[in-house]
Amino acid sequence: MPRGEMTTSRLEAFSDGVVAIIVTIMVLELRAPSQPTLAALLKVAPVFLSYGLSFLVVAIMWVNHHHLVHAVHSVTAALLWSNLNLLFWMSLVPFVTDYLGKNYHESLAVALYGLDLLMCSVAFFLLRLVLIRQDRNDTALTEYHSSVQRKNAFSAALYLLSVPLAYFSVYASFFVFVLIPAMYFLPEKRLAEGRE
Amino acid sequence: MPRGEMTTSRLEAFSDGVVAIIVTIMVLELRAPSQPTLAALLKVAPVFLSYGLSFLVVAIMWVNHHHLVHAVHSVTAALLWSNLNLLFWMSLVPFVTDYLGKNYHESLAVALYGLDLLMCSVAFFLLRLVLIRQDRNDTALTEYHSSVQRKNAFSAALYLLSVPLAYFSVYASFFVFVLIPAMYFLPEKRLAEGRE
Amino acid sequence: MPRGEMTTSRLEAFSDGVVAIIVTIMVLELRAPSQPTLAALLKVAPVFLSYGLSFLVVAIMWVNHHHLVHAVHSVTAALLWSNLNLLFWMSLVPFVTDYLGKNYHESLAVALYGLDLLMCSVAFFLLRLVLIRQDRNDTALTEYHSSVQRKNAFSAALYLLSVPLAYFSVYASFFVFVLIPAMYFLPEKRLAEGRE
Amino acid sequence: MPRGEMTTSRLEAFSDGVVAIIVTIMVLELRAPSQPTLAALLKVAPVFLSYGLSFLVVAIMWVNHHHLVHAVHSVTAALLWSNLNLLFWMSLVPFVTDYLGKNYHESLAVALYGLDLLMCSVAFFLLRLVLIRQDRNDTALTEYHSSVQRKNAFSAALYLLSVPLAYFSVYASFFVFVLIPAMYFLPEKRLAEGRE
Repeated sequence: MPRGEMTTSRLEAFSDGVVAIIVTIMVLELRAPSQPTLAALLKVAPVFLSYGLSFLVVAIMWVNHHHLVHAVHSVTAALLWSNLNLLFWMSLVPFVTDYLGKNYHESLAVALYGLDLLMCSVAFFLLRLVLIRQDRNDTALTEYHSSVQRKNAFSAALYLLSVPLAYFSVYASFFVFVLIPAMYFLPEKRLAEGRE
Repeated sequence: MPRGEMTTSRLEAFSDGVVAIIVTIMVLELRAPSQPTLAALLKVAPVFLSYGLSFLVVAIMWVNHHHLVHAVHSVTAALLWSNLNLLFWMSLVPFVTDYLGKNYHESLAVALYGLDLLMCSVAFFLLRLVLIRQDRNDTALTEYHSSVQRKNAFSAALYLLSVPLAYFSVYASFFVFVLIPAMYFLPEKRLAEGRE
Repeated sequence: MPRGEMTTSRLEAFSDGVVAIIVTIMVLELRAPSQPTLAALLKVAPVFLSYGLSFLVVAIMWVNHHHLVHAVHSVTAALLWSNLNLLFWMSLVPFVTDYLGKNYHESLAVALYGLDLLMCSVAFFLLRLVLIRQDRNDTALTEYHSSVQRKNAFSAALYLLSVPLAYFSVYASFFVFVLIPAMYFLPEKRLAEGRE
Repeated sequence: MPRGEMTTSRLEAFSDGVVAIIVTIMVLELRAPSQPTLAALLKVAPVFLSYGLSFLVVAIMWVNHHHLVHAVHSVTAALLWSNLNLLFWMSLVPFVTDYLGKNYHESLAVALYGLDLLMCSVAFFLLRLVLIRQDRNDTALTEYHSSVQRKNAFSAALYLLSVPLAYFSVYASFFVFVLIPAMYFLPEKRLAEGRE
């Protein structure tokens, strides 16, 4: 019964909506300091930096999600729920970002941030796995997915590393948090520019 | 005068917007604990679990809503207001979720959570009733609706049960809250996979 | 230069987005009481009732907005800014709702609620005025607009009345607040059903 | 591989979503005063005025963004990231608005508000630069972009001025904050009306 089949565009629109909200409500955690002094403002700086980092990370996820879902022709239940699984872990980003911003020198907060981004990476991996299985007859697409999947697995491994690392040095974890966006950002740019 | 008639896609887009916001603002209730200790974090665990449960429940409602509305051809006033009625009860989910997360061992909070999900189920039932009456000439559709309607009535009955149950044992109510998503999730998956 | 002309559908989509957010964030004001007693919950009842009322009022505005904008063919600057003016006053609904819910027996809070809904009505009136002037060659449309415009002016007058009324009896203002949705709701239903 | 290319409409829809949320969540900062007296309400007036100003500023940005992006045919990575850069600075508007509203007589808060709007202007400038380079073969479009770019540079210069100005007189900065919307608003209107 094809009556209830979801279109790719509706899946995209809903995901976009959730991502747009995630990226924007994080700013609500940026509480304006009650005193109008530079010292009070500087206390908000770590919260601001963690917001900036999470904005970048979620923006990259949004771009990747677009590349991932755009080619899909049929929205199966497996795809739908892998996507909702991804959105769930992404929806926790504002929480871990706030926790990190307020406790950036504490291993637990740093590890938790890494853990949520790890779960997002794993959710991306699973989502792509569903798509590879689903479109296994399209050789060009499968090849493309496989190459991105390797990159995805690599950044998931790095996020996994960042969790215990936070108990040795939070700065090592921060290095991972900054490295992965940098890694993703550059090839993405090259790819897209090569496309025109 | 067909001038002002609403298209199904606009009804869907608006409903999707509201659902995307509901599902995402719930995370704002997940307040980061002020102390970076595991003990402080574990205190947030019930809030986190109730968030996870509500995310799942709302996601299922979103998928069901899609299946329900997608086949509609004309947006009548009855449909429009049944849909807004559903959105109203769904919009209370963040409130009852927060209340449950902070008082998960209290009968009142558990009963209230069950009550709101009951109202959502009833709203779904009424919405589907409108659609059945509206498209009564399309036999295949009516048959499909009737079969889902029975499932809907069954889960509404279970949610109704969960309200007084909370005064005997909150765990019995929790069992209902987890059972219904499980029940919905599996057939939904089967249906959609059978469709391809 | 028609390059930058906005389509009606984008105006609708943006307005829908804002309305969906307005209607949903109001629920954030519904703070779960810290104590799980019925007495504590009942204290939230006025906040809940004012939320319900505002949900209904905003939902009606959304439906009316749809009927209004749907027929538009060219989005002029006058239309764009009349629409943004309407969205501004609508965006204050969560604020006045919260204030009303917490101070429902105080004239000031009741008057302020009436004042914001008055401004919304006036904004609707101005928006429709722009449309009437813009499409003055389409006789059927003008006639339709004029008939709705009278109803709009009438409810604006009632909201205007509700402001000073709140200083005599808040219940008289409440009567107006409930009367206007009832008034709008019924004809809207008749119109739409007559259309099929 | 054109598989993953983003359409202009999706870029618009996502940006619209973020802007709709930005414009609406600002109202959450308008906390209802706990006491229902006019004096308590008047204390919220500066927060209300700064909300009104920011609503106007963000609305103008939304209209400009539409004019800017609407003509685009291919969404390159440079465009995508310039757009995300703009959205980042826009997403900080609720924060600086709240800070301004609560400390409107303090140089720091006023300067910070000017700084964020400066960053938004610069982000608009960079975004338009990408578009000019991208569509350099379309002479008519380039000419249009160049004329708007000059206006953009001028308002960026004024916002830059408003930052140090706040340390001499906050009222001078307020004058700039009100002048720029006024400046933008009028020509925008003329342009659009000239178009019909």
